[in-house]
Amino acid sequence: MSEIIECIPNVSEGKNQDVINKIIENLKQTGVKLLDVSSDPDHNRTVITFVGDRTTVLEGAFTVAKSAVELIDLRNHKGTHPRMGAVDVIPFVPIKRITMEETVELSKTLAKRIGEELKIPVYLYAESATKEERKALPNIRQGEFEGFFEKIKDPNWAPDFGPNEVHPTAGVVAVGAREFLIAYNIYLNTKDVSIAEKIAKSIRESSGGLRFIQAKGMYIEEKGLAQVSMNVLNYKKAPLYRVFEIVKMEAERYGVNIVESELVGLMPLKAILDSLAFYLRFPKLTSESIIEMKIYE
Amino acid sequence: MSEIIECIPNVSEGKNQDVINKIIENLKQTGVKLLDVSSDPDHNRTVITFVGDRTTVLEGAFTVAKSAVELIDLRNHKGTHPRMGAVDVIPFVPIKRITMEETVELSKTLAKRIGEELKIPVYLYAESATKEERKALPNIRQGEFEGFFEKIKDPNWAPDFGPNEVHPTAGVVAVGAREFLIAYNIYLNTKDVSIAEKIAKSIRESSGGLRFIQAKGMYIEEKGLAQVSMNVLNYKKAPLYRVFEIVKMEAERYGVNIVESELVGLMPLKAILDSLAFYLRFPKLTSESIIEMKIYE
Repeated sequence: MSEIIECIPNVSEGKNQDVINKIIENLKQTGVKLLDVSSDPDHNRTVITFVGDRTTVLEGAFTVAKSAVELIDLRNHKGTHPRMGAVDVIPFVPIKRITMEETVELSKTLAKRIGEELKIPVYLYAESATKEERKALPNIRQGEFEGFFEKIKDPNWAPDFGPNEVHPTAGVVAVGAREFLIAYNIYLNTKDVSIAEKIAKSIRESSGGLRFIQAKGMYIEEKGLAQVSMNVLNYKKAPLYRVFEIVKMEAERYGVNIVESELVGLMPLKAILDSLAFYLRFPKLTSESIIEMKIYE
Repeated sequence: MSEIIECIPNVSEGKNQDVINKIIENLKQTGVKLLDVSSDPDHNRTVITFVGDRTTVLEGAFTVAKSAVELIDLRNHKGTHPRMGAVDVIPFVPIKRITMEETVELSKTLAKRIGEELKIPVYLYAESATKEERKALPNIRQGEFEGFFEKIKDPNWAPDFGPNEVHPTAGVVAVGAREFLIAYNIYLNTKDVSIAEKIAKSIRESSGGLRFIQAKGMYIEEKGLAQVSMNVLNYKKAPLYRVFEIVKMEAERYGVNIVESELVGLMPLKAILDSLAFYLRFPKLTSESIIEMKIYE
């Protein structure tokens, strides 16, 4: 099997099932493997997750963009989630046998094609960003669809591809490559959320902790336990075992233990292997060691 | 898709790359899916792993046996791993859509064919064993190639198939069906093999340690380190983390540390998940959490 890239386009329709179905039907014809479709009526937004090799995923992403431009009119769009385009953002994530650099290239190929063929201004973001202030999506999206008709006139906000004019019904779009994001939570054997908050502060980047870690303390009613709730923005540079062991160390300081940890959503196999390699001192532990991976490939 | 059976013949050549290559070339022509070839020059042994359906895997196993008999002369064989045959042991493991009973039948078909066509005495072992004392491979292998010329005269050690005489250059072979076996080694930061031997004794079932663990102490020339060399016969009941932590604990008693651990061959994904679940206190860690497994499903 060839490389695997994940693509997670967000389109600005979360209510009209006919529109969503048409987008998905068109996508399916490109040969990608569809993993998930999550529509949120309040956000009025649908998050589509699919995978494929370079050619397929590129075709799939373009097809979603094209369908969204044809079927969604942002002038009528209302929802709680900020948005700037009919297809709002298209992230690519390298999963297997592809580097971040190659994934950035892939995102640029799509950005160029969307700009030329669909006549939408395209902003490269995340790892693909051409300027520092375009790395974070909220920076680009600021002002949203309605504000972009002015924002685009600022030379600092000239698009990376496509026309220098906002598409009248489809707005603008952000396209880029990023690392897989792991949503990882650790429960403590205490109800005291202030302890979880202190631990979160010690581990998160914004307070001087580990790079690539966002963290906050929460109280989880359902379990009756405090939780350190985290986003691991780069699991290769901030591996799960290190996050776990630091949380454990800081928890001990307050006489508290870790009850259990959990994932929200999915994680790549490499995140698991890297962490077990630490514990078992197993430098050569890779997916090559796993019989299922050998059989399916 | 039809059934998947794994076959892991061990041949007594781990140095001469020409011989190993010829065996693998012949095997490839049978249409099996080759998963791994691990040669160990110190053991002077190669572990070959392949999968296929009943017909293919049977043909592959017979071809490896035939090639080994033709190319390997045990009279000249030296290595740190005990051995009794040019093809020393041929295990079959049910992976998918096949029962253990059917896998036992498959092993008997191969055993009969090897006995008749290659004129080698064949001992059925593990789940295929016809007597209690033939279940454990070390029992059969005791005395090794050199000792078998006497051992075979004992009516208790009459082979299950093939002639009642040891093959002059290829010895004898064990064939059988078993559960997935993990060959797991742990290196210590010492050259003192007696420490590895003491640790092996503390962890293996035969000396009163963990059930489903076979272990011995070895000195690995290549690394200049002592090694606890283990077979995990049931990774569900004797998980890797427990094996690792007990070895670590016993090593500390002698002022010795674990340098690294390694696998010979492959392991099932579940073995990895079960161990990481222990370290990260992650009770819900399953293959459902892994994006690659969603992709291959």
